Amino acid sequence: MPSVFGHSYLGDLFDDSEASEIWSAERQIKLMLLFEAAWSRSLGDAGVISDDDAEKAAMAIETFEPDVEAIARETARDGLPVPELVRQLRMHVGPLEGCVHRGATSQDVIDTALALTIGATLDRLQTRTSALDRDLDGVIARFGGRHLMAKTRMQAAKPITVADRVSVWRGSFAACADRIDGVRTRAVRLQFGGAVGDRNVLDGKASAVAAAMSRRLGLPDPGRAWHADRAGVVEFADLLSAISGASGKMGQDLCLMAQARGDELKLSAGGRSSAMPHKNNPILAELLVTLARFNATQVGAMHQALVHEQERSGAAWVLEWMVLPQMAEVSMRSLAAARELLSKIEALGA
Amino acid sequence: MPSVFGHSYLGDLFDDSEASEIWSAERQIKLMLLFEAAWSRSLGDAGVISDDDAEKAAMAIETFEPDVEAIARETARDGLPVPELVRQLRMHVGPLEGCVHRGATSQDVIDTALALTIGATLDRLQTRTSALDRDLDGVIARFGGRHLMAKTRMQAAKPITVADRVSVWRGSFAACADRIDGVRTRAVRLQFGGAVGDRNVLDGKASAVAAAMSRRLGLPDPGRAWHADRAGVVEFADLLSAISGASGKMGQDLCLMAQARGDELKLSAGGRSSAMPHKNNPILAELLVTLARFNATQVGAMHQALVHEQERSGAAWVLEWMVLPQMAEVSMRSLAAARELLSKIEALGA
Amino acid sequence: MPSVFGHSYLGDLFDDSEASEIWSAERQIKLMLLFEAAWSRSLGDAGVISDDDAEKAAMAIETFEPDVEAIARETARDGLPVPELVRQLRMHVGPLEGCVHRGATSQDVIDTALALTIGATLDRLQTRTSALDRDLDGVIARFGGRHLMAKTRMQAAKPITVADRVSVWRGSFAACADRIDGVRTRAVRLQFGGAVGDRNVLDGKASAVAAAMSRRLGLPDPGRAWHADRAGVVEFADLLSAISGASGKMGQDLCLMAQARGDELKLSAGGRSSAMPHKNNPILAELLVTLARFNATQVGAMHQALVHEQERSGAAWVLEWMVLPQMAEVSMRSLAAARELLSKIEALGA
Amino acid sequence: MPSVFGHSYLGDLFDDSEASEIWSAERQIKLMLLFEAAWSRSLGDAGVISDDDAEKAAMAIETFEPDVEAIARETARDGLPVPELVRQLRMHVGPLEGCVHRGATSQDVIDTALALTIGATLDRLQTRTSALDRDLDGVIARFGGRHLMAKTRMQAAKPITVADRVSVWRGSFAACADRIDGVRTRAVRLQFGGAVGDRNVLDGKASAVAAAMSRRLGLPDPGRAWHADRAGVVEFADLLSAISGASGKMGQDLCLMAQARGDELKLSAGGRSSAMPHKNNPILAELLVTLARFNATQVGAMHQALVHEQERSGAAWVLEWMVLPQMAEVSMRSLAAARELLSKIEALGA
Repeated sequence: MPSVFGHSYLGDLFDDSEASEIWSAERQIKLMLLFEAAWSRSLGDAGVISDDDAEKAAMAIETFEPDVEAIARETARDGLPVPELVRQLRMHVGPLEGCVHRGATSQDVIDTALALTIGATLDRLQTRTSALDRDLDGVIARFGGRHLMAKTRMQAAKPITVADRVSVWRGSFAACADRIDGVRTRAVRLQFGGAVGDRNVLDGKASAVAAAMSRRLGLPDPGRAWHADRAGVVEFADLLSAISGASGKMGQDLCLMAQARGDELKLSAGGRSSAMPHKNNPILAELLVTLARFNATQVGAMHQALVHEQERSGAAWVLEWMVLPQMAEVSMRSLAAARELLSKIEALGA
Repeated sequence: MPSVFGHSYLGDLFDDSEASEIWSAERQIKLMLLFEAAWSRSLGDAGVISDDDAEKAAMAIETFEPDVEAIARETARDGLPVPELVRQLRMHVGPLEGCVHRGATSQDVIDTALALTIGATLDRLQTRTSALDRDLDGVIARFGGRHLMAKTRMQAAKPITVADRVSVWRGSFAACADRIDGVRTRAVRLQFGGAVGDRNVLDGKASAVAAAMSRRLGLPDPGRAWHADRAGVVEFADLLSAISGASGKMGQDLCLMAQARGDELKLSAGGRSSAMPHKNNPILAELLVTLARFNATQVGAMHQALVHEQERSGAAWVLEWMVLPQMAEVSMRSLAAARELLSKIEALGA
Repeated sequence: MPSVFGHSYLGDLFDDSEASEIWSAERQIKLMLLFEAAWSRSLGDAGVISDDDAEKAAMAIETFEPDVEAIARETARDGLPVPELVRQLRMHVGPLEGCVHRGATSQDVIDTALALTIGATLDRLQTRTSALDRDLDGVIARFGGRHLMAKTRMQAAKPITVADRVSVWRGSFAACADRIDGVRTRAVRLQFGGAVGDRNVLDGKASAVAAAMSRRLGLPDPGRAWHADRAGVVEFADLLSAISGASGKMGQDLCLMAQARGDELKLSAGGRSSAMPHKNNPILAELLVTLARFNATQVGAMHQALVHEQERSGAAWVLEWMVLPQMAEVSMRSLAAARELLSKIEALGA
Repeated sequence: MPSVFGHSYLGDLFDDSEASEIWSAERQIKLMLLFEAAWSRSLGDAGVISDDDAEKAAMAIETFEPDVEAIARETARDGLPVPELVRQLRMHVGPLEGCVHRGATSQDVIDTALALTIGATLDRLQTRTSALDRDLDGVIARFGGRHLMAKTRMQAAKPITVADRVSVWRGSFAACADRIDGVRTRAVRLQFGGAVGDRNVLDGKASAVAAAMSRRLGLPDPGRAWHADRAGVVEFADLLSAISGASGKMGQDLCLMAQARGDELKLSAGGRSSAMPHKNNPILAELLVTLARFNATQVGAMHQALVHEQERSGAAWVLEWMVLPQMAEVSMRSLAAARELLSKIEALGA
């Protein structure tokens, strides 16, 4: 497996357990089942099927344990997991098969699950940026009045206080936090379009089903499908990279302060060298730079995926799958690593 | 000159005259003079110098015609144009030299000019996205009820209406328009930090000067310098690429519709071929794809520039100079080309 | 886990079993042990230690089963796995601890393992591009004389033969194959520098150890460390993206040909839709486009990593770890998927 | 104009006069006329037209001064300059119009001009990397035996010599120089395909014309068109970024050494600050980092352009036009700036 995430010996450096859980295959399957159960009930709400059948189907869906290996096998053929999952669900409910996925399409399932996943991630980003803001406030409380030599163009300029430099870091994170609500509005929404995205399904009851789905999942209904309009998803990616970028700026500054062998920055317990026992490497500070540059690269792929042709681009959509979960994990990890790094500061400034 | 912008025979394809003007060297110099004149007057407002001296210095600055060749020459040495511009201004005002640039630094001048330039660009983006929205509404009015074959994964799926597809385009542009206010709040702000960004200049009168500058330039004062916090500038870049991306998706769809030789799309007056006189190439539709992929790449450079070390990074800041103006021109051009392309539609759908 | 590789239900679409094996954590550990065993023996060859001790240490290393969990735990602190691995090895060999890793540094171990991994990957790329070339030759043999409408700017131009279009695909892959030897020369080399890369270790016997290592591992010795000179590694990344790019061009063409519902291209057994049973989606052709755009993005991160400061950049080096293995898997997968896709062609041209 | 190249006051920082000339619009027009003159003569060589007509047409072409404004105007419509240029040429030669561009297509003209431009650029890169190698050798001769503190992970490690660090820089540039021949073989080639790239033009005399063109232009004939196979062009871009990346690594190291206020590095005449007269900013060293990160971003766009659909992609091809000339200028500038920077070194090491 060529990924540093979940890697047997590198994973602890890169993994963020909360992000890994939110974006895991297991949770995506749960969200797909959540969608399908809500869908069946919404078909009932809208009178497409009887409430009784709806509830029976939904309950069968909720407790279903899919054959993931079969899904994997068919995904290699179909390009996505939903056709096989729906086939299994229909087999499972037997006579109620008409109550499952009726009028929906694969993208409705996967992108609604994505919207819920983005929402869960934004919640954590909000919590963590707040916590980090408090941490930075604490750094200022402890060391804010001490002095640093300001550096412009990497050259000594004039003395400033620790608070001056740390306030710039806070400002960047605050700007990210400010964006969260806007991203939520534009990215955390019900996806429902039906086969070709026009909601022209279910004999005029599509709107009622959409309204029921929106209520049941707690997701605003934008009133149209966004299957081929990826603006919201990409804006979320922008934010992810803004956060890791703010962390990277802080990390770079701490790397540079660590050069002075303790005159500007004292960190507890850094990394060891296999050849030089005297070293105390600022691993987490460097990691923040790495993560920033990683996401700064990935965000470009997400913007490429805006060119999402026609009603569904297999090429552009799948590119998101390859990139966005990694970006989310990196962004979450960067906040966790930033907090951990701040907690290791024993002294800052002089 | 290796740029397609202002290029003697390719320029008409890529240039956007409004963007070129807003981001031109000439206008940047005017904005730097605007800053310096406002600065002198603000020094007067705050009582750092007399109102009379302030007004005299400001008037001398406003009418000053800098020796741009000398600025160019010194920029190659200093890395930025301000030291030489200030030197010329001080020479020009002679005995009032203490009323010029006092307490300010190069980055205050250049980044405040940038904020004003971003503001002017956002104004045009707002105007143009609104106009484009009306154009798309017009396309729907003319052709919305006609049919198209929906395509998912580039395969014929089921029929939809022209309105279905065009509404997705509108949705992407609307999402971009929604973001403008947020970007304005976070990116269009006074930059004032003094030499090292801490506003620790002018003997306690920095706040008063900042307030006066804010009022005079019509720029909110964030209360701190954002010299090393590039979050706002990068969020602006995100928006620029979101806009060209939305245009690129529309362009890609129109390219694909143009394949059907008029069954799905009729365009007036396309491009000629030097070898095949029968061809009518959808040049502008392709151009939209090109512009989208260009900005999707550049946005990554802007995110790299978030890693802006210490109080001023010569490396990261200058990277913005190389990339951001091009992104702005491309984004503006994409909206202009999108509108022009829509105006050439003679028929859409069947 | 946020990666599509090794993913429980998406993995079959993205995984390449050979690449996964070559770049796996397990194999990297084996290569690190291979390095350390060869290193001990080379210390013997050069007379730093006795041949007998060397052989004993090497044999102990070769059969050692490291505590990977402990390595993972310490990697989170040290930033890399070698210090803990070496600590375990030294404990394991007890009195021979002076025969383990003496004079080497972490980067020697990891980058030599990388060189071997790149070499193994190049072998497979060579095999696969040759096989693909034969496949394409077969396509020409079967369908080369049939006709296609050439398309320039996505518009019908003039008729060509299937051989004309397929020959362009072959040409791109041939250009990639041509590059392999050059990449091998510049990227598949012994890394040995010692703690700070100057080989100023082992009391004048560094050259002899280098020569022995080179012979034992079958890796040319460039005569200096390349720890901070990433040109070769990045050239390998260039090639990986060139290959996925060539595949992406072929995939894009096949997607476009698949539009004609069998007039230009007939594929067996494509992907199903959850909503439209009549569809036969060209999943693999789209996947090739996705993989191309993924690697086209990642290659930028590798080029960013060229800015590798001083004698070892924790930030830039680790960025390679996040990106390069994924690129290798994508490139290998793109060749496998290209071959599989060609094997599904039932008819091409008319 | 939003480009730093040719910019009225920033240009001296970014421009490379040789690169600007090689990639200028003026020179591209000259190369297009060179192509057309050689083409007419080659038509004569192959017996398509009489030698006499061929020579007359060629001479008329060689001295023709095109109406560039008209070309610009029509390029906005046609998407490329050739149709209008050919129209003007045919008008100009009047009765010999059948001797102009017969059997050729726009892409033959533009891409052959590109091949010649790449060739000219490679010549300069070779000259400059050789010169830089001598400069670095000179740095070693002057300061090679002095000491530096090696830094790993930006932390003091152990002392090395100046020669150790500078040799790493040399190694990266040498690796780039090694690649030039391979790039030349794969990228500097005649482009000739005719309208749709199959050379199925000129009644069986296409091969003879290709042979004549190859001889007249000194460009190897690959025997097929590479219009839609961009592997060679992208490999050239890889090299451009490898060169600016090697320069960026050196620049980053010099920035970091400049921190020590002369203990590790003394530079003559750096940049001034508008606020801090005591500063001596290492402008060129930072510039090298900027240029490296710029090209590291752009190379991604070139790799995106590998997905060049069908026989000619208006979208992908034009993306190259936007990106490649800038990359070439940046790469050339980085070598010039690197040399200038080395010449300013007054002391290195201790």
